[in-house]
Amino acid sequence: MKIGIVGLGLIGGSLALDFKAAGHWVLGIARRVATCEQAIAHQIVDQAATDLKSAAIADVIFICTPIAAIGATLDQLRPYLRSTTVVSDVGSVKGALVAAATERWPNFVGGHPMAGKAEAGLDVAEAGLFRDRPYVLTPVSQTPPEAVTQLKHLIAEALHARIYECDPSDHDRAVAWISHLPVMVSSGLIQACLEEPDPAVLTLAQAIASSGFCDTSRVGGGAPELGLMMAQFNRLELQRSLYAYRQQVDILLQIIDQEDWSALGNYLKASQAARPQFLQP
Amino acid sequence: MKIGIVGLGLIGGSLALDFKAAGHWVLGIARRVATCEQAIAHQIVDQAATDLKSAAIADVIFICTPIAAIGATLDQLRPYLRSTTVVSDVGSVKGALVAAATERWPNFVGGHPMAGKAEAGLDVAEAGLFRDRPYVLTPVSQTPPEAVTQLKHLIAEALHARIYECDPSDHDRAVAWISHLPVMVSSGLIQACLEEPDPAVLTLAQAIASSGFCDTSRVGGGAPELGLMMAQFNRLELQRSLYAYRQQVDILLQIIDQEDWSALGNYLKASQAARPQFLQP
Repeated sequence: MKIGIVGLGLIGGSLALDFKAAGHWVLGIARRVATCEQAIAHQIVDQAATDLKSAAIADVIFICTPIAAIGATLDQLRPYLRSTTVVSDVGSVKGALVAAATERWPNFVGGHPMAGKAEAGLDVAEAGLFRDRPYVLTPVSQTPPEAVTQLKHLIAEALHARIYECDPSDHDRAVAWISHLPVMVSSGLIQACLEEPDPAVLTLAQAIASSGFCDTSRVGGGAPELGLMMAQFNRLELQRSLYAYRQQVDILLQIIDQEDWSALGNYLKASQAARPQFLQP
Repeated sequence: MKIGIVGLGLIGGSLALDFKAAGHWVLGIARRVATCEQAIAHQIVDQAATDLKSAAIADVIFICTPIAAIGATLDQLRPYLRSTTVVSDVGSVKGALVAAATERWPNFVGGHPMAGKAEAGLDVAEAGLFRDRPYVLTPVSQTPPEAVTQLKHLIAEALHARIYECDPSDHDRAVAWISHLPVMVSSGLIQACLEEPDPAVLTLAQAIASSGFCDTSRVGGGAPELGLMMAQFNRLELQRSLYAYRQQVDILLQIIDQEDWSALGNYLKASQAARPQFLQP
């Protein structure tokens, strides 16, 4: 199959590596010539170009640009596509994006490969990045079933990802809970510690913080543009989850204010019991 | 030097291993005969006993029982101690405990070795557990300086820990921020997710949760008795930090409600910039 990848960063580059390894012919499209040259030199793609016109040859196209650019990229691609071309994306929020893209291109299937790294860019692209990771597809009622089937085959055979299929809105609600809310929860923890008024205590806290603080604060101390993107593109679901979270903080405050240790014991036991269901074996 | 360890769990056993390796003679005291036999069989201690009487021989004694039992253990030990014996503990909250213990035994120096594992018990005790980890000592104005000096030498030479010295109240405030607050923040995250009313969305969220959720929820899904102990023994400081944290959640909600993306960008940038100060190299 001929596969086009628009946007050669971590995700686009890693997709290209796996598709090529599975025997597909891969065209990479990047804005910068240097990125194209790098992709060719490292045999990440079979062919590279800076213009979207060359995508005409592809049977399936993955738009791997930042989420804010996906709509505009699809608009620019449209004139060059055959009606049978399947277009997908890798954006981490799906609702409004999928609705708009489906209107523009009926053969569009929203996708979200849930794999990442702390670093970004083609330099850190790697084969096997999506193996055993979730890959969510979000077809809507108008989406042609053949397009979904074709994508599923590709993703299963070349990426060895765990495929999930759901409504765009269910996707956005689920990622708000397990991906976007944790960023805010964790960022708030870092900022709360900085509120300590005694500099000696803050210095001590910084010196003795260990793995517990490190893990709990990790996603909150990550790339600001990622957290911002989540809030901008998934605002309603993030708000909803953050309000539900504040209720939990209030419950904890009430329990501790009342020194209701049996309630706190039950709360912590329930958390311990619930967590394993969120961890894939 | 003759060192007594009362309570042979993860911390007591690990202290014993390092002190013995550094050439000290180590007596272990445990309630169960089987624990004493295990400690002898695995050469964790030189001698083991179930009665506190045998502690009379020790120059320095570490009380490594659960925090709720430290005061009573010191009371039971007292009749057998020489006036020169230095007594320390390994409790993770220091304020009230150190005040009471100092009244009972002037040669008492509060201590908190900040190392741990997910598992508990002598089975998982290990040599080198405290190497390069923080070990906080909390002497008060009445504490004899010689007792502090003696302990510091022991800890530096045998454990190779990073030693910090501070007021018991500063210790409790610092650990509230970086150890006790994260448990509540993280537990609240797990419970908030469970509030999702649509079972299909909850199932999807559980299936696609990945490293971000895993890390942020880790300490909140830990042993309930640990979180409970933190809240019971460090209630006032935990309350204070949790109220400060709720303010941060409110700030985030306000920013997101108002779609003030420049404020959110600054907030997340400040978090990213602040986190490294909490991570020891």
